[in-house]
Amino acid sequence: MAGKQNPEQRRRELCDAAIALLAREGVKGVTHLKVDRKAGVPDGTTSFYFRTSSALMRAAANRIADLDLADLTAATGSGTRGDVGGLARLVIRSGSGARLVRSKARFELAMPSSRDPGLAEAFSHNRQRLFELHRNVVVALCPADTDPGLIDEKAYVLLTFIGGLMLALARGDRTIDSYEQLRDIITAIVVAAPATSHREGVAAVDR
Amino acid sequence: MAGKQNPEQRRRELCDAAIALLAREGVKGVTHLKVDRKAGVPDGTTSFYFRTSSALMRAAANRIADLDLADLTAATGSGTRGDVGGLARLVIRSGSGARLVRSKARFELAMPSSRDPGLAEAFSHNRQRLFELHRNVVVALCPADTDPGLIDEKAYVLLTFIGGLMLALARGDRTIDSYEQLRDIITAIVVAAPATSHREGVAAVDR
Repeated sequence: MAGKQNPEQRRRELCDAAIALLAREGVKGVTHLKVDRKAGVPDGTTSFYFRTSSALMRAAANRIADLDLADLTAATGSGTRGDVGGLARLVIRSGSGARLVRSKARFELAMPSSRDPGLAEAFSHNRQRLFELHRNVVVALCPADTDPGLIDEKAYVLLTFIGGLMLALARGDRTIDSYEQLRDIITAIVVAAPATSHREGVAAVDR
Repeated sequence: MAGKQNPEQRRRELCDAAIALLAREGVKGVTHLKVDRKAGVPDGTTSFYFRTSSALMRAAANRIADLDLADLTAATGSGTRGDVGGLARLVIRSGSGARLVRSKARFELAMPSSRDPGLAEAFSHNRQRLFELHRNVVVALCPADTDPGLIDEKAYVLLTFIGGLMLALARGDRTIDSYEQLRDIITAIVVAAPATSHREGVAAVDR
Protein backbone atom coordinates (compact mmCIF):
# COMPACT_ATOMS: atom_id res chain seq x y z
CA MET A 1 0.00 0.00 0.00
CA ALA A 2 2.97 2.32 0.45
CA GLY A 3 4.96 4.57 -1.83
CA LYS A 4 3.36 5.57 -5.08
CA GLN A 5 0.04 7.24 -4.22
CA ASN A 6 -0.34 10.94 -4.58
CA PRO A 7 -0.94 12.90 -1.35
CA GLU A 8 -4.72 13.15 -1.86
CA GLN A 9 -5.04 9.41 -2.34
CA ARG A 10 -2.83 8.79 0.70
CA ARG A 11 -4.95 11.17 2.83
CA ARG A 12 -8.11 9.31 1.81
CA GLU A 13 -6.57 5.96 2.77
CA LEU A 14 -5.56 7.29 6.18
CA CYS A 15 -9.05 8.73 6.71
CA ASP A 16 -10.61 5.38 5.81
CA ALA A 17 -8.37 3.66 8.34
CA ALA A 18 -9.35 6.25 10.98
CA ILE A 19 -13.04 5.67 10.15
CA ALA A 20 -12.63 1.91 10.63
CA LEU A 21 -10.96 2.48 14.02
CA LEU A 22 -13.64 5.00 15.05
CA ALA A 23 -16.35 2.45 14.23
CA ARG A 24 -14.65 -0.25 16.26
CA GLU A 25 -13.31 1.64 19.27
CA GLY A 26 -14.74 5.16 19.27
CA VAL A 27 -12.84 8.46 19.47
CA LYS A 28 -10.82 7.15 22.43
CA GLY A 29 -9.50 4.29 20.29
CA VAL A 30 -8.04 6.38 17.47
CA THR A 31 -4.34 7.28 17.69
CA HIS A 32 -2.00 8.28 14.88
CA LEU A 33 0.07 5.13 15.35
CA LYS A 34 -3.01 2.86 15.21
CA VAL A 35 -4.08 4.56 11.98
CA ASP A 36 -0.57 3.93 10.54
CA ARG A 37 -0.78 0.24 11.43
CA LYS A 38 -4.38 -0.10 10.20
CA ALA A 39 -3.52 1.54 6.86
CA GLY A 40 -0.33 -0.51 6.51
CA VAL A 41 1.94 2.53 6.17
CA PRO A 42 5.23 3.36 7.95
CA ASP A 43 4.93 4.62 11.53
CA GLY A 44 4.72 8.41 11.50
CA THR A 45 2.88 8.70 8.19
CA THR A 46 -0.42 9.77 9.76
CA SER A 47 1.39 12.34 11.93
CA PHE A 48 3.03 13.71 8.80
CA TYR A 49 -0.32 14.25 7.07
CA PHE A 50 -2.40 15.22 10.13
CA ARG A 51 -0.40 16.89 12.87
CA THR A 52 -2.98 16.80 15.64
CA SER A 53 -5.68 14.41 16.79
CA SER A 54 -8.18 17.15 16.09
CA ALA A 55 -6.94 17.53 12.48
CA LEU A 56 -7.22 13.77 11.98
CA MET A 57 -10.80 13.69 13.35
CA ARG A 58 -11.77 16.65 11.17
CA ALA A 59 -10.36 14.94 8.08
CA ALA A 60 -12.25 11.72 8.93
CA ALA A 61 -15.45 13.74 9.44
CA ASN A 62 -14.97 15.46 6.07
CA ARG A 63 -14.42 12.11 4.40
CA ILE A 64 -17.61 10.68 5.98
CA ALA A 65 -19.58 13.77 4.95
CA ASP A 66 -18.31 13.60 1.35
CA LEU A 67 -19.12 9.88 1.01
CA ASP A 68 -22.56 10.35 2.61
CA LEU A 69 -23.41 13.15 0.23
CA ALA A 70 -22.23 11.22 -2.83
CA ASP A 71 -24.25 8.17 -1.75
CA LEU A 72 -27.40 10.15 -1.07
CA THR A 73 -27.14 12.10 -4.33
CA ALA A 74 -26.71 8.86 -6.28
CA ALA A 75 -29.60 7.20 -4.41
CA THR A 76 -32.20 9.96 -4.60
CA GLY A 77 -31.25 11.42 -7.98
CA SER A 78 -29.74 14.78 -8.91
CA GLY A 79 -33.00 16.36 -10.11
CA THR A 80 -35.36 18.40 -7.94
CA ARG A 81 -37.76 15.46 -7.46
CA GLY A 82 -36.10 12.90 -5.17
CA ASP A 83 -36.59 9.14 -5.38
CA VAL A 84 -38.20 7.76 -2.20
CA GLY A 85 -37.30 4.19 -3.15
CA GLY A 86 -33.66 5.17 -3.56
CA LEU A 87 -33.62 6.82 -0.14
CA ALA A 88 -35.21 3.77 1.52
CA ARG A 89 -32.77 1.39 -0.19
CA LEU A 90 -29.76 3.48 0.86
CA VAL A 91 -30.88 3.69 4.50
CA ILE A 92 -31.40 -0.08 4.71
CA ARG A 93 -27.95 -0.60 3.16
CA SER A 94 -26.40 1.65 5.80
CA GLY A 95 -27.08 -1.16 8.29
CA SER A 96 -24.48 -3.55 6.86
CA GLY A 97 -21.09 -3.82 5.16
CA ALA A 98 -18.80 -0.85 4.53
CA ARG A 99 -21.69 1.60 4.99
CA LEU A 100 -22.29 0.27 8.51
CA VAL A 101 -18.66 0.99 9.39
CA ARG A 102 -19.06 4.55 8.13
CA SER A 103 -22.41 4.92 9.87
CA LYS A 104 -20.96 3.83 13.21
CA ALA A 105 -18.07 6.26 12.79
CA ARG A 106 -20.49 9.08 11.94
CA PHE A 107 -22.46 8.56 15.15
CA GLU A 108 -19.24 8.28 17.20
CA LEU A 109 -18.59 11.85 16.05
CA ALA A 110 -22.19 13.11 16.44
CA MET A 111 -21.79 14.45 19.98
CA PRO A 112 -18.08 15.42 19.74
CA SER A 113 -18.97 17.54 16.70
CA SER A 114 -21.54 19.45 18.76
CA ARG A 115 -18.72 20.42 21.18
CA ASP A 116 -15.80 21.01 18.78
CA PRO A 117 -16.22 23.89 16.28
CA GLY A 118 -13.61 22.46 13.88
CA LEU A 119 -15.39 19.12 13.78
CA ALA A 120 -18.80 20.82 13.52
CA GLU A 121 -17.60 22.69 10.43
CA ALA A 122 -16.62 19.43 8.75
CA PHE A 123 -20.18 18.16 9.04
CA SER A 124 -21.99 21.46 8.55
CA HIS A 125 -20.51 22.13 5.12
CA ASN A 126 -22.87 19.53 3.66
CA ARG A 127 -25.79 19.78 6.10
CA GLN A 128 -27.70 22.17 3.84
CA ARG A 129 -27.18 19.83 0.88
CA LEU A 130 -28.42 16.81 2.89
CA PHE A 131 -31.51 18.80 3.81
CA GLU A 132 -32.09 19.69 0.14
CA LEU A 133 -31.83 16.06 -0.95
CA HIS A 134 -34.40 15.01 1.67
CA ARG A 135 -36.54 17.97 0.64
CA ASN A 136 -36.46 16.73 -2.97
CA VAL A 137 -37.94 13.42 -1.80
CA VAL A 138 -40.71 15.38 -0.05
CA VAL A 139 -41.37 17.43 -3.21
CA ALA A 140 -41.80 14.24 -5.22
CA LEU A 141 -44.41 12.93 -2.75
CA CYS A 142 -46.53 16.10 -2.39
CA PRO A 143 -49.00 17.82 -4.74
CA ALA A 144 -47.34 20.46 -6.94
CA ASP A 145 -49.19 23.32 -5.22
CA THR A 146 -47.98 22.47 -1.69
CA ASP A 147 -46.80 25.51 0.28
CA PRO A 148 -42.96 25.69 0.26
CA GLY A 149 -42.91 26.35 4.03
CA LEU A 150 -44.89 23.17 4.62
CA ILE A 151 -42.49 21.29 2.33
CA ASP A 152 -39.61 22.52 4.53
CA GLU A 153 -41.35 21.32 7.70
CA LYS A 154 -42.02 17.90 6.18
CA ALA A 155 -38.36 17.72 5.12
CA TYR A 156 -37.28 18.32 8.75
CA VAL A 157 -39.64 15.59 9.96
CA LEU A 158 -38.23 13.20 7.35
CA LEU A 159 -34.61 14.11 8.19
CA THR A 160 -35.36 13.56 11.90
CA PHE A 161 -36.92 10.15 11.29
CA ILE A 162 -34.09 9.03 8.98
CA GLY A 163 -31.55 10.22 11.57
CA GLY A 164 -33.21 8.12 14.26
CA LEU A 165 -33.33 5.10 11.99
CA MET A 166 -29.68 5.42 10.95
CA LEU A 167 -28.70 5.62 14.64
CA ALA A 168 -30.76 2.52 15.47
CA LEU A 169 -29.18 0.61 12.58
CA ALA A 170 -25.66 1.77 13.57
CA ARG A 171 -26.29 0.57 17.14
CA GLY A 172 -27.73 -2.73 15.97
CA ASP A 173 -31.08 -2.07 17.68
CA ARG A 174 -34.18 -3.85 16.51
CA THR A 175 -35.95 -1.54 14.10
CA ILE A 176 -37.38 -1.30 10.58
CA ASP A 177 -35.29 -3.49 8.30
CA SER A 178 -37.36 -4.13 5.19
CA TYR A 179 -36.96 -1.99 2.11
CA GLU A 180 -40.67 -2.13 1.14
CA GLN A 181 -41.75 -1.36 4.68
CA LEU A 182 -39.40 1.59 4.94
CA ARG A 183 -40.41 3.02 1.55
CA ASP A 184 -44.07 2.85 2.57
CA ILE A 185 -43.35 4.35 6.02
CA ILE A 186 -41.35 7.26 4.55
CA THR A 187 -44.17 7.95 2.09
CA ALA A 188 -46.81 7.82 4.82
CA ILE A 189 -44.82 10.10 7.14
CA VAL A 190 -44.15 12.69 4.44
CA VAL A 191 -47.78 12.80 3.31
CA ALA A 192 -49.15 13.00 6.87
CA ALA A 193 -46.70 14.98 9.00
CA PRO A 194 -47.29 17.78 9.44
CA ALA A 195 -50.65 18.11 7.70
CA THR A 196 -50.56 21.92 7.93
CA SER A 197 -47.81 24.43 8.58
CA HIS A 198 -47.11 25.38 12.21
CA ARG A 199 -44.82 28.29 11.55
CA GLU A 200 -47.01 30.54 13.75
CA GLY A 201 -46.82 28.26 16.78
CA VAL A 202 -43.08 27.88 17.28
CA ALA A 203 -42.89 29.95 20.48
CA ALA A 204 -45.32 27.80 22.46
CA VAL A 205 -42.83 25.24 23.72
CA ASP A 206 -43.62 24.63 27.33
CA ARG A 207 -47.04 24.86 28.87
CA MET B 1 -21.99 18.08 50.23
CA ALA B 2 -19.74 15.67 52.13
CA GLY B 3 -20.17 13.40 55.12
CA LYS B 4 -23.69 12.49 56.09
CA GLN B 5 -25.30 10.92 53.04
CA ASN B 6 -25.99 7.24 52.93
CA PRO B 7 -24.06 5.25 50.30
CA GLU B 8 -26.98 5.14 47.82
CA GLN B 9 -27.39 8.91 47.97
CA ARG B 10 -23.63 9.38 47.56
CA ARG B 11 -23.58 7.05 44.54
CA ARG B 12 -26.37 9.06 42.92
CA GLU B 13 -24.48 12.32 43.47
CA LEU B 14 -21.32 10.89 41.92
CA CYS B 15 -23.33 9.59 38.95
CA ASP B 16 -24.91 13.01 38.46
CA ALA B 17 -21.45 14.59 38.46
CA ALA B 18 -20.27 11.99 35.92
CA ILE B 19 -23.33 12.73 33.75
CA ALA B 20 -22.54 16.47 33.80
CA LEU B 21 -18.94 15.76 32.74
CA LEU B 22 -20.08 13.34 30.03
CA ALA B 23 -22.39 16.00 28.61
CA ARG B 24 -19.64 18.61 28.58
CA GLU B 25 -16.61 16.60 27.50
CA GLY B 26 -17.69 13.14 26.36
CA VAL B 27 -16.41 9.76 27.60
CA LYS B 28 -12.80 10.93 27.13
CA GLY B 29 -13.39 13.77 29.59
CA VAL B 30 -14.60 11.67 32.53
CA THR B 31 -11.99 10.64 35.11
CA HIS B 32 -12.54 9.58 38.71
CA LEU B 33 -10.68 12.64 39.96
CA LYS B 34 -12.74 15.03 37.83
CA VAL B 35 -15.91 13.43 39.19
CA ASP B 36 -14.61 13.95 42.76
CA ARG B 37 -13.95 17.63 42.06
CA LYS B 38 -17.25 18.13 40.22
CA ALA B 39 -19.22 16.52 43.07
CA GLY B 40 -17.25 18.45 45.70
CA VAL B 41 -16.13 15.33 47.57
CA PRO B 42 -12.64 14.33 48.79
CA ASP B 43 -10.24 13.00 46.14
CA GLY B 44 -10.55 9.24 45.94
CA THR B 45 -14.26 9.10 46.80
CA THR B 46 -15.35 8.13 43.26
CA SER B 47 -12.64 5.44 43.10
CA PHE B 48 -13.92 4.06 46.41
CA TYR B 49 -17.47 3.68 45.08
CA PHE B 50 -16.63 2.74 41.47
CA ARG B 51 -13.31 0.95 41.09
CA THR B 52 -12.99 1.10 37.30
CA SER B 53 -13.83 3.58 34.60
CA SER B 54 -16.16 0.96 33.14
CA ALA B 55 -18.02 0.60 36.47
CA LEU B 56 -18.43 4.37 36.68
CA MET B 57 -19.81 4.58 33.11
CA ARG B 58 -22.20 1.69 33.81
CA ALA B 59 -23.46 3.41 36.95
CA ALA B 60 -23.96 6.68 35.04
CA ALA B 61 -25.82 4.79 32.29
CA ASN B 62 -28.07 3.11 34.88
CA ARG B 63 -28.80 6.47 36.47
CA ILE B 64 -29.69 8.00 33.06
CA ALA B 65 -31.92 5.03 32.24
CA ASP B 66 -33.73 5.22 35.60
CA LEU B 67 -34.36 8.96 35.29
CA ASP B 68 -35.50 8.60 31.65
CA LEU B 69 -37.95 5.89 32.57
CA ALA B 70 -39.34 7.83 35.54
CA ASP B 71 -39.77 10.95 33.37
CA LEU B 72 -41.47 9.07 30.56
CA THR B 73 -43.79 7.17 32.90
CA ALA B 74 -44.82 10.43 34.58
CA ALA B 75 -45.32 12.17 31.22
CA THR B 76 -47.29 9.52 29.38
CA GLY B 77 -49.23 8.07 32.32
CA SER B 78 -49.04 4.71 34.01
CA GLY B 79 -52.18 3.29 32.35
CA THR B 80 -52.23 1.31 29.13
CA ARG B 81 -53.35 4.32 27.07
CA GLY B 82 -50.44 6.77 26.83
CA ASP B 83 -50.77 10.55 26.67
CA VAL B 84 -49.45 11.93 23.36
CA GLY B 85 -49.39 15.48 24.72
CA GLY B 86 -47.30 14.35 27.68
CA LEU B 87 -44.80 12.64 25.38
CA ALA B 88 -44.51 15.71 23.13
CA ARG B 89 -44.05 18.01 26.13
CA LEU B 90 -41.34 15.78 27.61
CA VAL B 91 -39.40 15.56 24.35
CA ILE B 92 -39.43 19.34 23.88
CA ARG B 93 -38.26 19.75 27.48
CA SER B 94 -35.34 17.38 26.83
CA GLY B 95 -33.84 20.17 24.70
CA SER B 96 -33.06 22.48 27.62
CA GLY B 97 -32.03 22.66 31.28
CA ALA B 98 -31.09 19.61 33.36
CA ARG B 99 -32.79 17.27 30.87
CA LEU B 100 -30.54 18.56 28.09
CA VAL B 101 -27.47 17.66 30.19
CA ARG B 102 -28.83 14.15 30.67
CA SER B 103 -29.80 13.88 27.01
CA LYS B 104 -26.30 14.84 25.86
CA ALA B 105 -24.77 12.31 28.24
CA ARG B 106 -27.14 9.61 26.97
CA PHE B 107 -26.07 10.15 23.36
CA GLU B 108 -22.39 10.25 24.37
CA LEU B 109 -22.96 6.68 25.56
CA ALA B 110 -25.11 5.57 22.60
CA MET B 111 -22.29 4.15 20.51
CA PRO B 112 -20.02 3.02 23.39
CA SER B 113 -22.95 1.01 24.73
CA SER B 114 -23.22 -0.84 21.41
CA ARG B 115 -19.59 -1.98 21.86
CA ASP B 116 -19.45 -2.63 25.63
CA PRO B 117 -21.70 -5.44 26.93
CA GLY B 118 -21.66 -4.07 30.49
CA LEU B 119 -22.79 -0.67 29.31
CA ALA B 120 -25.34 -2.21 26.94
CA GLU B 121 -26.90 -4.08 29.86
CA ALA B 122 -27.34 -0.82 31.77
CA PHE B 123 -29.49 0.57 28.97
CA SER B 124 -31.19 -2.64 27.89
CA HIS B 125 -32.75 -3.32 31.27
CA ASN B 126 -35.32 -0.62 30.56
CA ARG B 127 -35.48 -0.76 26.75
CA GLN B 128 -38.54 -3.02 26.82
CA ARG B 129 -40.28 -0.66 29.22
CA LEU B 130 -39.49 2.37 27.03
CA PHE B 131 -40.96 0.51 24.09
CA GLU B 132 -44.11 -0.29 26.09
CA LEU B 133 -44.58 3.36 27.09
CA HIS B 134 -44.33 4.46 23.45
CA ARG B 135 -46.64 1.61 22.49
CA ASN B 136 -49.20 2.91 25.00
CA VAL B 137 -49.21 6.26 23.18
CA VAL B 138 -49.85 4.39 19.92
CA VAL B 139 -52.71 2.42 21.52
CA ALA B 140 -54.37 5.67 22.61
CA LEU B 141 -54.23 7.03 19.03
CA CYS B 142 -55.51 3.95 17.17
CA PRO B 143 -58.98 2.37 16.88
CA ALA B 144 -59.62 -0.30 19.52
CA ASP B 145 -59.70 -3.11 16.95
CA THR B 146 -56.22 -2.37 15.50
CA ASP B 147 -54.09 -5.49 14.99
CA PRO B 148 -51.54 -5.83 17.85
CA GLY B 149 -48.75 -6.56 15.33
CA LEU B 150 -49.50 -3.31 13.54
CA ILE B 151 -49.50 -1.49 16.90
CA ASP B 152 -46.01 -2.88 17.52
CA GLU B 153 -44.77 -1.67 14.13
CA LYS B 154 -46.21 1.80 14.72
CA ALA B 155 -44.54 1.85 18.14
CA TYR B 156 -41.14 1.14 16.51
CA VAL B 157 -41.71 3.94 13.99
CA LEU B 158 -42.60 6.32 16.84
CA LEU B 159 -39.60 5.24 18.94
CA THR B 160 -37.33 5.76 15.90
CA PHE B 161 -38.68 9.24 15.22
CA ILE B 162 -38.45 10.27 18.88
CA GLY B 163 -34.87 8.93 19.01
CA GLY B 164 -33.90 11.05 16.00
CA LEU B 165 -35.55 14.11 17.50
CA MET B 166 -33.88 13.67 20.90
CA LEU B 167 -30.49 13.36 19.15
CA ALA B 168 -31.13 16.52 17.11
CA LEU B 169 -32.14 18.41 20.26
CA ALA B 170 -29.10 17.09 22.16
CA ARG B 171 -26.80 18.24 19.34
CA GLY B 172 -28.51 21.62 19.11
CA ASP B 173 -29.51 21.06 15.47
CA ARG B 174 -32.39 23.00 14.00
CA THR B 175 -35.46 20.78 14.24
CA ILE B 176 -39.04 20.68 15.52
CA ASP B 177 -39.21 22.82 18.64
CA SER B 178 -42.89 23.62 19.21
CA TYR B 179 -44.99 21.54 21.54
CA GLU B 180 -48.19 21.85 19.45
CA GLN B 181 -46.34 21.05 16.25
CA LEU B 182 -44.69 17.99 17.79
CA ARG B 183 -47.95 16.70 19.29
CA ASP B 184 -49.64 16.97 15.89
CA ILE B 185 -46.68 15.40 14.09
CA ILE B 186 -46.55 12.43 16.50
CA THR B 187 -50.29 11.92 16.05
CA ALA B 188 -50.02 12.09 12.25
CA ILE B 189 -47.05 9.69 12.15
CA VAL B 190 -48.72 7.13 14.41
CA VAL B 191 -51.99 7.19 12.47
CA ALA B 192 -50.26 6.97 9.07
CA ALA B 193 -47.12 4.86 9.42
CA PRO B 194 -47.32 2.08 8.63
CA ALA B 195 -50.86 1.91 7.29
CA THR B 196 -50.79 -1.89 7.15
CA SER B 197 -48.58 -4.53 8.71
CA HIS B 198 -45.47 -5.57 6.76
CA ARG B 199 -44.53 -8.57 8.83
CA GLU B 200 -44.43 -10.74 5.69
CA GLY B 201 -41.97 -8.50 3.83
CA VAL B 202 -39.09 -8.34 6.28
CA ALA B 203 -36.67 -10.48 4.25
CA ALA B 204 -36.79 -8.27 1.15
CA VAL B 205 -34.08 -5.87 2.23
CA ASP B 206 -31.85 -5.26 -0.74
CA ARG B 207 -32.97 -5.43 -4.33
